[in-house]
Amino acid sequence: MHVADLPTPALLVDADALAANVATMGATWPGRALRPHVKAFKSTALARELVAAGHDAFCCATPAEMVGMAAAGLGADLLLANEVVDRRVLATMVGATLGSRLTVAVDSDETVDAAAAAGVREVLVDVNVGLPRCGCAPADAARLAERARGAGLEVRGVMGYEGHLMGDVDAKAERVAEAMAILAAAQAEVGGDVVSGGGTGTWDLNRTVTELQAGSYTLMDADYAKVTPFRPALHLLATVVSVNRAGGWAVADVGLKSTSLDHGNPVLDGHRVWFCSDEHTTFAPDRETAWPAVGDRLRLQPGHVDPTVALHEVLHVVRGDEVIDTWPVDLRGWDVRRG
Amino acid sequence: MHVADLPTPALLVDADALAANVATMGATWPGRALRPHVKAFKSTALARELVAAGHDAFCCATPAEMVGMAAAGLGADLLLANEVVDRRVLATMVGATLGSRLTVAVDSDETVDAAAAAGVREVLVDVNVGLPRCGCAPADAARLAERARGAGLEVRGVMGYEGHLMGDVDAKAERVAEAMAILAAAQAEVGGDVVSGGGTGTWDLNRTVTELQAGSYTLMDADYAKVTPFRPALHLLATVVSVNRAGGWAVADVGLKSTSLDHGNPVLDGHRVWFCSDEHTTFAPDRETAWPAVGDRLRLQPGHVDPTVALHEVLHVVRGDEVIDTWPVDLRGWDVRRG
Repeated sequence: MHVADLPTPALLVDADALAANVATMGATWPGRALRPHVKAFKSTALARELVAAGHDAFCCATPAEMVGMAAAGLGADLLLANEVVDRRVLATMVGATLGSRLTVAVDSDETVDAAAAAGVREVLVDVNVGLPRCGCAPADAARLAERARGAGLEVRGVMGYEGHLMGDVDAKAERVAEAMAILAAAQAEVGGDVVSGGGTGTWDLNRTVTELQAGSYTLMDADYAKVTPFRPALHLLATVVSVNRAGGWAVADVGLKSTSLDHGNPVLDGHRVWFCSDEHTTFAPDRETAWPAVGDRLRLQPGHVDPTVALHEVLHVVRGDEVIDTWPVDLRGWDVRRG
Repeated sequence: MHVADLPTPALLVDADALAANVATMGATWPGRALRPHVKAFKSTALARELVAAGHDAFCCATPAEMVGMAAAGLGADLLLANEVVDRRVLATMVGATLGSRLTVAVDSDETVDAAAAAGVREVLVDVNVGLPRCGCAPADAARLAERARGAGLEVRGVMGYEGHLMGDVDAKAERVAEAMAILAAAQAEVGGDVVSGGGTGTWDLNRTVTELQAGSYTLMDADYAKVTPFRPALHLLATVVSVNRAGGWAVADVGLKSTSLDHGNPVLDGHRVWFCSDEHTTFAPDRETAWPAVGDRLRLQPGHVDPTVALHEVLHVVRGDEVIDTWPVDLRGWDVRRG
């Protein structure tokens, strides 16, 4: 099939860029030194590519992602790198993933107790290393580990996400080292052999973790592309549906329902994007000679890969103008009762 | 079922607020004077509530919405209020909606020709009335109508959307009247008896259209709520998963994958929302005495209803803390081959 045969809007994955990104990351973080984060791509088919490259342990952000990965036979070592306090959800997840190895992050008495009550067996203590989000106070990590062990849970170690240091920040190497020193100190008190953390934005600076939680490197965000060698592998295919030369704009059939705007508008080379509405992007060419015609196809780069993928049902894998595969985005939503 | 039994994140529709909004709008725009826009709620179950209130003609933004509405038996009079130039998509839509009445917007030679080639029978000429998006130049409307009639299409009239005047703008009444004067003049040249346009933000000012294309009034955006009497009927149910009193923040399990940020962060009464990440919202209470506990439930108001609904699989209809129904969000995506 040819890209021209696809209805729009559609997401395209550049097979060669994806393969290059997987190879670049795998050369530094081989095998289980990398724990790819499935929230970035939400596709078990893409996860299988990573297994083929030697990475068979994964991170998830939701119980539904955990269940979907296990149901696809990708449950060798799944980490729910997030806090869940709803015991029914956790118990349903445990029941739906029998035969898989599950580890769950905990950062409070409540999340420890919920994990134990739901039949979870293994946990990591999530330690706050500076990002204002989840994670216990470093001084509380040992106490939580003790509480978890007292409840019969195996404590595999710690995790901590330096999410505030992923972008182009000053003194990045020093600040990553400081954040990871907090995590290493907590691990010394907690015990276990896992130190999980990091991400695409610190892949070359984080020297502390035993496993890197990177996901965006696969399809690659525009922001991360400024600070890493990974290549943009995701584009949004659009059709020009209206052209108003007198007014000075044209309209494509992608909008805020097909590309997430939380990191800004999508980028269209050679054009300025004016704004997105539900199903439209209004834009103008940089040069008078570059006006598109109604029916022309365009490839835009989404501002933020992770939530854009979550807006779509499928990823079309392409090499140039040829569609070589179509992968379902099968890890969407939050319904933990599905497999 | 009780709201406390729902896993989170979840979308809640306040049944009484929805009913009040439907009654308020229907009192001014009864029956087919209103053409509700399904893009706002993407649910055939909610559309059925509008049919019960007397409105059985609908607007859609995508061919997939058209097909879904027809498959649900809601095809009495469906308008694709958007331009589509892909003949295969249009032909699939026509083939999948036999027995329904379909009208399609056109604003160029290419969209007229595509509609005719695909077997569409009825069109509206989409006229630009000031919003930099779709719609032909007003002076071109009569020529396009003639081209359409020459291709065997029935021209029902015109549509024009004053989307740039929906919010709290200066001299709103005068500017709406000016935009609609453009549309009325085009209709006089085009012929037909339909003048379709308007929206929730101009429901009380637009005196020109024969049918109002409003959708957001059903569930109600925070922005529109400032300029209309409609009540917010959509909330996002969340669970507090982490509390860091020393740091000064707490974290709920809703994020930019469950609430669209294109109109800003969700609103949580009595709290300041700091930021959203994929599956988290970091926030802080306004008062020291209002700290939540891990496991507490919260109801947030999304910034923008339309794209937030599109992120979810179901709407839970509630009255207070009781869940009285669950409606699938069955008009998501762009796959026109489904029914």
